[in-house]
Amino acid sequence: MNREFYGNFTLGILGGGQLGRMLIQEAINLNIDSKVLDPDSNAPCKHLCNEFVNGSLNDFNAVVEFAKNVDVLTIEIEHVSVEALKKIQTTGVKVYPQPGVLEIIQDKGLQKEFYTKHNIPTASYTLINGSSEVNAHFKAGGIIQKLRKGGYDGKGVVLLKDDKDLNKAFDAPSVIEEKVDIEKEISVIVARNEAGEVKAFPIVELGYNSEANLVEYLISPAGVSKDFQQQAESIAKNVANSLGIVGILAVEMFITKSGKILVNEVAPRPHNSGHQSIEGNVTSQYEQHLRAILGLPLGSTEITLPSVMVNLLGEKGHEGEVVYEGLKECLAIDGVKVHLYGKKSTKPFRKMGHVTIIDKDIKSAMVKAEKVKNTLKVKSK
Amino acid sequence: MNREFYGNFTLGILGGGQLGRMLIQEAINLNIDSKVLDPDSNAPCKHLCNEFVNGSLNDFNAVVEFAKNVDVLTIEIEHVSVEALKKIQTTGVKVYPQPGVLEIIQDKGLQKEFYTKHNIPTASYTLINGSSEVNAHFKAGGIIQKLRKGGYDGKGVVLLKDDKDLNKAFDAPSVIEEKVDIEKEISVIVARNEAGEVKAFPIVELGYNSEANLVEYLISPAGVSKDFQQQAESIAKNVANSLGIVGILAVEMFITKSGKILVNEVAPRPHNSGHQSIEGNVTSQYEQHLRAILGLPLGSTEITLPSVMVNLLGEKGHEGEVVYEGLKECLAIDGVKVHLYGKKSTKPFRKMGHVTIIDKDIKSAMVKAEKVKNTLKVKSK
Repeated sequence: MNREFYGNFTLGILGGGQLGRMLIQEAINLNIDSKVLDPDSNAPCKHLCNEFVNGSLNDFNAVVEFAKNVDVLTIEIEHVSVEALKKIQTTGVKVYPQPGVLEIIQDKGLQKEFYTKHNIPTASYTLINGSSEVNAHFKAGGIIQKLRKGGYDGKGVVLLKDDKDLNKAFDAPSVIEEKVDIEKEISVIVARNEAGEVKAFPIVELGYNSEANLVEYLISPAGVSKDFQQQAESIAKNVANSLGIVGILAVEMFITKSGKILVNEVAPRPHNSGHQSIEGNVTSQYEQHLRAILGLPLGSTEITLPSVMVNLLGEKGHEGEVVYEGLKECLAIDGVKVHLYGKKSTKPFRKMGHVTIIDKDIKSAMVKAEKVKNTLKVKSK
Repeated sequence: MNREFYGNFTLGILGGGQLGRMLIQEAINLNIDSKVLDPDSNAPCKHLCNEFVNGSLNDFNAVVEFAKNVDVLTIEIEHVSVEALKKIQTTGVKVYPQPGVLEIIQDKGLQKEFYTKHNIPTASYTLINGSSEVNAHFKAGGIIQKLRKGGYDGKGVVLLKDDKDLNKAFDAPSVIEEKVDIEKEISVIVARNEAGEVKAFPIVELGYNSEANLVEYLISPAGVSKDFQQQAESIAKNVANSLGIVGILAVEMFITKSGKILVNEVAPRPHNSGHQSIEGNVTSQYEQHLRAILGLPLGSTEITLPSVMVNLLGEKGHEGEVVYEGLKECLAIDGVKVHLYGKKSTKPFRKMGHVTIIDKDIKSAMVKAEKVKNTLKVKSK
């Protein structure tokens, strides 16, 4: 850094959602001022940051203007104007993760080609331009179609079992992937700083809500062998090093039924699969991201206590001003750590908060997590 | 609570210093809006709260006006207008801790009388009106004179060894205490909620900077026998129950060389001797205070990892815009958690931040703490 990060120093954050919110909560500890850009005038970060700007993350001029008085610019969502980031970099502002990294990650086609080029294991794939090309690629067991651009939070991904599903196909540039027989879904969060220091968090295991295609809970540490631990960590570090990213990178992977690890996709920012690190690891993913982008040494990623994280998703059939049912009951359970994201209104499957349960015994944590999942309901008034 | 604490609910906090700041950091997790009153227009809470009001905590009208649109009012410093709090209570706003509790604690004379009345062990004492009465109370080994009102952060307390020290005596209503032969200084933080549920944190051990009369580091858990643990916890709970406090209470105690536990004084708010709970206990003192005053069940106080906390005090000879020397070196040590309070300028012994070191091995944590104490220096530019 040319100057110290505390005092007359501003971290710009593109996006003002829950990830930015938890990043700011951590930034408070290091006395880092923050400035946030978000299209939602009621974004979760609004009252926490030192300066809030309401505007589009894809508007070149808005993003360039926003960054004029920031010292380091980062993101909490990858769908931002890369052209603007490139322009901002030329003005001497540090942009982490770098625009070139975002360019690859924003496009799932480029992401896949990047994996191939760098010998990173991933499900086999084909790139297509639209739905008319889908039919030629069907395989027994079905295929996955992913939009190359713009997918988020489970949107932009569809399973096509056979040609009867053709009407569900996206008519846009996409990746067609073979459907993999998945044994477990895992994630490794890895950080890389300016000096090239790289550290990975221990693997976590993900459980999905198949209806919403969203992570419903995660388990730390994952119940996998040491061999898988080492393989997954090494793959994640390889991705971070190959990208040359500065910042944090979530690497989502599958362990297949035949015992292979495949990279599914990556996110160049704090990630849902790292929330448990706030209470369950020596350094949280948020602190680690700050350390990485501010030129500080990376922190220990060691697990302090086993943990299970449950996402609080808006209940089906509920839309409007939010009310949390069962909160008191859950707070009475030892080790329950509640994080509400400050969103005023709920809708089905909207991420409204999360709960991390820490417990010396992972089985006990899982029992408690199940209780929380069945008790704490996100409804509308 | 008559209504839920999230959404259109405001927690009022009298005082906007570091304790309020860490309280707000925790309140973010429960989506609690905060409004802060502080006489310093650059108070550490200023940019974190939803609404900041600049004004005196002892100005009856300012405090009453401040509380008009808050739902629950709390404090982060006990030197506030109790008369205003009493008035506010009559308007239906919940005030925790209660004004009656503050009234006793604000006056060290009333505090001492309260201990006597409730059979709470404390050093023997006499109340005097001014320095002319000091001479009559000298004892071999010296006496401690404490101002009944207004002392804070080590100020308002003086050791008078013999009548040569008479010129140092305060000429104001004071408590004269016998000087106790101290083996260890310890603290137990205890919380009590509206329903009368009471929980104590495990004892921590304090190490003082004798020059500034400020806590320099603390060790969790304290190195004391189980018997002392139980005694100290039972005394702390007795104080909380006798006061009938709603909120958190820090009970500072001495273990004497003859093996007795004596209550030194109490603070009805989050306290310096509980900072390590942020990373070292399942529930932090800040979360516990929120749970207590919001009518929620109290959280587990169990230790997750041993920890040592080091206060970052302004260096002698340095006054003005702050600079932290050795920060990077300290951040490179595993388990170092830095908390800077966001104060723009330093002065000798000002509390500018703290560092908690968590480590599976308490001895290793202490070695790291020593390193941090010798490396991280708070200086002026």
